[in-house]
Amino acid sequence: MTTQPDLIQALGAKANRLRIHSIRAISEAGSGHPSTCLSAAEIVATLFFRVMRYDPKNPASPVADRFVLSKGHAAPVLYAAWCEAGLYTPEQLLTLRRVDSDLEGHPTPRLPFVDVATGSLGQGLGVGVGLALNSRDLDKTNYRTYVLLGDGEVAEGAVWEAAQMAGYYKLDNLVAIVDTNRLGQSQATMLQHDLETLAARFAAFGWNTVTVDGHDVGQLLDAFDKAAATPGKPFAIIAKTFKGKGVSFAENKDGWHGKPFKKGEETEKAIAEVTAAGIDEKVALPIPAPTARPAEFAAAKPMEAPAFKPGDEIATREAYGFALVKLGAANPRVVALDADTKNSTYSDKFLKAYPDRFFEGFIAEQNLVSVAAGLAARGRIPFASSFSVFLSRGFDQVRMAGVSGSNIKLCGSHVGVSIGEDGPSQMGLEDLALYRAIPNAVVFYPSDGVSAERAVALAAEHRGFAYIRTSRPKTPILYSNDEPFAIGKAKVLRKSAKDVLTIVSGGVTLVEAIKAADELAKEGIALRIIDLFTVKPIDRETLVANAAETGNRILTVEDHYPEGGIGEAVTAAVADAGIRVARIAVTEVPRSGKPEELIAKYGIDAAAIAKKVKALL
Amino acid sequence: MTTQPDLIQALGAKANRLRIHSIRAISEAGSGHPSTCLSAAEIVATLFFRVMRYDPKNPASPVADRFVLSKGHAAPVLYAAWCEAGLYTPEQLLTLRRVDSDLEGHPTPRLPFVDVATGSLGQGLGVGVGLALNSRDLDKTNYRTYVLLGDGEVAEGAVWEAAQMAGYYKLDNLVAIVDTNRLGQSQATMLQHDLETLAARFAAFGWNTVTVDGHDVGQLLDAFDKAAATPGKPFAIIAKTFKGKGVSFAENKDGWHGKPFKKGEETEKAIAEVTAAGIDEKVALPIPAPTARPAEFAAAKPMEAPAFKPGDEIATREAYGFALVKLGAANPRVVALDADTKNSTYSDKFLKAYPDRFFEGFIAEQNLVSVAAGLAARGRIPFASSFSVFLSRGFDQVRMAGVSGSNIKLCGSHVGVSIGEDGPSQMGLEDLALYRAIPNAVVFYPSDGVSAERAVALAAEHRGFAYIRTSRPKTPILYSNDEPFAIGKAKVLRKSAKDVLTIVSGGVTLVEAIKAADELAKEGIALRIIDLFTVKPIDRETLVANAAETGNRILTVEDHYPEGGIGEAVTAAVADAGIRVARIAVTEVPRSGKPEELIAKYGIDAAAIAKKVKALL
Repeated sequence: MTTQPDLIQALGAKANRLRIHSIRAISEAGSGHPSTCLSAAEIVATLFFRVMRYDPKNPASPVADRFVLSKGHAAPVLYAAWCEAGLYTPEQLLTLRRVDSDLEGHPTPRLPFVDVATGSLGQGLGVGVGLALNSRDLDKTNYRTYVLLGDGEVAEGAVWEAAQMAGYYKLDNLVAIVDTNRLGQSQATMLQHDLETLAARFAAFGWNTVTVDGHDVGQLLDAFDKAAATPGKPFAIIAKTFKGKGVSFAENKDGWHGKPFKKGEETEKAIAEVTAAGIDEKVALPIPAPTARPAEFAAAKPMEAPAFKPGDEIATREAYGFALVKLGAANPRVVALDADTKNSTYSDKFLKAYPDRFFEGFIAEQNLVSVAAGLAARGRIPFASSFSVFLSRGFDQVRMAGVSGSNIKLCGSHVGVSIGEDGPSQMGLEDLALYRAIPNAVVFYPSDGVSAERAVALAAEHRGFAYIRTSRPKTPILYSNDEPFAIGKAKVLRKSAKDVLTIVSGGVTLVEAIKAADELAKEGIALRIIDLFTVKPIDRETLVANAAETGNRILTVEDHYPEGGIGEAVTAAVADAGIRVARIAVTEVPRSGKPEELIAKYGIDAAAIAKKVKALL
Repeated sequence: MTTQPDLIQALGAKANRLRIHSIRAISEAGSGHPSTCLSAAEIVATLFFRVMRYDPKNPASPVADRFVLSKGHAAPVLYAAWCEAGLYTPEQLLTLRRVDSDLEGHPTPRLPFVDVATGSLGQGLGVGVGLALNSRDLDKTNYRTYVLLGDGEVAEGAVWEAAQMAGYYKLDNLVAIVDTNRLGQSQATMLQHDLETLAARFAAFGWNTVTVDGHDVGQLLDAFDKAAATPGKPFAIIAKTFKGKGVSFAENKDGWHGKPFKKGEETEKAIAEVTAAGIDEKVALPIPAPTARPAEFAAAKPMEAPAFKPGDEIATREAYGFALVKLGAANPRVVALDADTKNSTYSDKFLKAYPDRFFEGFIAEQNLVSVAAGLAARGRIPFASSFSVFLSRGFDQVRMAGVSGSNIKLCGSHVGVSIGEDGPSQMGLEDLALYRAIPNAVVFYPSDGVSAERAVALAAEHRGFAYIRTSRPKTPILYSNDEPFAIGKAKVLRKSAKDVLTIVSGGVTLVEAIKAADELAKEGIALRIIDLFTVKPIDRETLVANAAETGNRILTVEDHYPEGGIGEAVTAAVADAGIRVARIAVTEVPRSGKPEELIAKYGIDAAAIAKKVKALL
């Protein structure tokens, strides 16, 4: 049995070994953040060599305790821990930040032990909430989740969104450690070493807390023991540390945030000082093995088909709710979340059907996305919904989910001026621009109940980020229940040999386009109509082939601003095919009014479409 | 002298009058949120008819106390207050939500008494911080700022970003009132009527707090008195209220969030109940007049010209810092903010020159944007900077600034893969897509020091939102110091009669395009090169004219994802002119590496451009 003093000595020495690895790797790279690695060394050593249960030979183990490095710029100390655990040689660490190395400047899931990319601060705790919810409420297993934050990043509101959700759900399998090293990038933090105030904030958000000296391994061990032994609340360890700890010329000094030690004398002096503080472990530090059992999932079945009747009218947002229920029956991995809009997005249908797989996220959309990313990291398929405009609050989290390749799905409802009287603050007119810009995203814009249900099924099948754009007004059913849909395949809704122009649209404006075509048909003007279905990837082939049959003319119509939406997507897709594309869209900040008044006022209704068609012919 | 009981009676009656106006207007509109107006009635009555100093005849008065309705869906009770103050007739209130009325579903600055649009929850307190900072530290006047929040919206992290900044800056001229009505849109809030926990949260964030019965005018009067008399900290009034207060069938009941009372019996029953509670004021309620003096600004002078030497190399981010200092000298309205990246964005130069006009916002970008909007609402011209990716955290706040027409300027640095080793989490590759989608935005993408300085000057002159995209690497000076720049005017950098193709670009890829042109010139291939300068508005005329002279061929190159960036902007702009546009951009999630390795790997360097040009010819 290891005596406590020996254990403390060994973990202290381990911390210094992490320091040396970090310094060497950063100096070799010539860029990076050494001082933040030095402040976290004892915390990381204690976690990786005493507290956490994992398998160094299987870094992707699904049953290991989770570690989220929310302060992603301390990546080298994480890589150093895995080196000391046996996954890397010290020489491999020296490939840090090289283009041919997965040891990137900030951690990404290219590494098997990283659940989500970090580096945009303040996102890790929300991911941790997702991981912890999954462990306790879904997998019903026992892995624990540890999130290491910096004190600078707790200024991010997203941290408090995560903290309140962890408190509300009483996630006592979640531990946050705040590496309170006093110094931000450009100056001291707001609270500096006022640990008590920081602890009071976590306490007010529903956490048990303890303040410790973050360089005192004994205090850290006690804190982690207490965290494990204290049920009913998440646990925050507020650790007083010093940036640059152990290196005299950098310790607790401003100006060393993103600055490597110079190769040569400066680096060697730093390493000599750390070495002198002790790097030999007197006793072995065995890594506890995971004890969790893997979650088991029944295989997914095909989702039940839509069941609309001809003449039905339904909002795509409501069809989303129907579909989510069917998807929940077909696929046990599917979970749903909402931000207190579930009676508007219709995700409440899923809540009623599967209360154990629904998480209310309240009005905190950044955290909603991060929690979803945490759930996705453990094999769940989360669908998170709110008004499109409010989801834009979480854009940076979605961007990071894109970097991670996270398998999350968002549904943004209430898009466009067609929501009506609530006015511009509630109208999603930028969402296509936002989500098209995420690499590998699938952006669905269903135009009726059938396609909305199919979009949900296809979103679940797609591996990666998907966005579903739903509308508020009821619109007619356009497709038969057995119509096949696929990602990247547009639908030709109207077609004749006499068509003189192709209209490309989606959602409420597609319905307006059909009305316009009906009117123009009376005047002998035949139009081809294409429902894009997925704005990304876009069905270039269908667009080009149909435009070629209609005088190489396309008109796009959308309840969205002109930038980054359907018009630009279509124009870019067919740019090299000699096709002329005209576009109509909402071109100014709208105002309140009835939906039909607004689509007329902003020039995207049937009359405006008909007028534009005539002008183009 | 009015006795206190009479005052309390009168304010209670006033609150009921506000209730009746709200109910009637919403019932007439057939949509809206009556229950949230009813919970706030005493708070609003006390503020508007006893506490706040303003001039009902001059609702746009710049010296009046400020009121921000952060819970924007309670708009009708705000309009009702202005009706009772004499600005509207009761009949005018009945135009609520009509397309021909400025009384929109949520408040916008179309109304003279509204500083910023609200309706996306959790943004008002940050705006209030900006208003309060302006009063105390810039105008050095005495107006006070009151922000009314809902308890649902305090789940938004942005609220805590604002709370911490108010606490840090000890804004004792700022009062937050939380209308704690227990019920959100779809269910009860997390804390429901646990006022003490909510107060503890504000206290931990640096506020003085008091809890009151929000329907007890006497308690509210005492609370506002205490707020005015307690220096050194911002003041939070946590008011226990009931949603639907005063209407028996709605009070404290779920399911009445966005639901009007039915016209006819239901509405009349509600009004009868409120009327019976008392609507006649026994004493007059004189509105205190503002005592603040208007701020005086020296007239802006032209900004000093750039002063680079031929052969200089400078990063556009650093030129931003130089320019900001010059702009600060030329225009006293200019202020700067940063999110703890000032030594990377170079806004620290402004801090050094004008410490009184710089506000450190710490790592809380949502709030940074909202504070800027508050400052802009009082005539300041705020420039807020951070890494481009981190600013994307505040997209919803920027969107709302767009709805407001706020005169704010953002500078996003460290764009694209050319930042190098820090990796994808730090690379701004979506910013053009985001900010192009803001109506009336100007999106600058300067390519050298001279144009970066001119962009800053032009951003200040533009009335409305502007975004400046700056790069990390040093690049050559391309323009003479006296080169004139204008919004919406591109620059033709290279031109000959033999040009076979026009390249359109900006930033580091423009420099690569010049290198490619130099190489291809050796092979006898002449290229035209256009520096877009503003991506929005785009200079269609220059693009079309030059493309026409180069075989109607354009190649765009950008350090940005393909969607919503330069390529799509150019393609859309020239779509009807018979010009073929090819595009190269970053098409996958990048990784860490040296800048020159990454621009090569992701196909946007000189070699990739030259190869693409040859393929196109």
